[in-house]
Amino acid sequence: MNTHAIAAVLGTLRFDASGLVAAVAQQHDTGEVLMLAWMNAEAVRETLATGRVCYYSRSRGRLWRKGESSGQTQRLVELRMDCDGDALLLRVDQHGVACHTGRRSCFYRAATETGLAETMAPEVDPKALYGAG
Amino acid sequence: MNTHAIAAVLGTLRFDASGLVAAVAQQHDTGEVLMLAWMNAEAVRETLATGRVCYYSRSRGRLWRKGESSGQTQRLVELRMDCDGDALLLRVDQHGVACHTGRRSCFYRAATETGLAETMAPEVDPKALYGAG
Repeated sequence: MNTHAIAAVLGTLRFDASGLVAAVAQQHDTGEVLMLAWMNAEAVRETLATGRVCYYSRSRGRLWRKGESSGQTQRLVELRMDCDGDALLLRVDQHGVACHTGRRSCFYRAATETGLAETMAPEVDPKALYGAG
Repeated sequence: MNTHAIAAVLGTLRFDASGLVAAVAQQHDTGEVLMLAWMNAEAVRETLATGRVCYYSRSRGRLWRKGESSGQTQRLVELRMDCDGDALLLRVDQHGVACHTGRRSCFYRAATETGLAETMAPEVDPKALYGAG
């Protein structure tokens, strides 16, 4: 995406006191919600410029190029913004699995009458994603 | 949902320093992502106990029973939690429209090469939702 268009997006977003907006990733063709993470202005800029999704890791305090360790990248299909500009919906094509547990989606636990139940199994061994170390 | 099951959910959630978790609402049958809002423990408890979605309004500093003013309620179909317990996915049945602008979803603006473009029109006049005052 060109720099003028990127500037228009960045100028409309309302980042919080930490300089972040929430970002929901959704598989573009199935509608499955994959994960929720955070982006700062630089992560939004890089994602729109390259078409590869880049978040901001709050725990590591730096840009987090999704898949940089695991290879499980996300290609951006469409970036949407909500009505008050403090949340993003990333319509993506997920390569492999989104969750560090090896599951397709991070939202794999459901509340049931008997407590939390797992709704999906890992598709990949997490050790294969990040190494056994 | 019974109180033991609700306690299991609340005991697993990791609320932030403000006592909140992010909650993504998704129409359960179409997969459309409707909105992103926030919940505190009481909002989660009430939502699971009643089956009607209740958020926490950060701007108003109180519980926000979705649709209390507009009539555009959300019935909970399933509550899911992400891998690190700090985000919820609410699979809901949205009555009417989710967005205060009268649109089905709050995520109605998309980034394009010429800037932000509206991807959906209002289905309801916002004045009809909240009154003309």
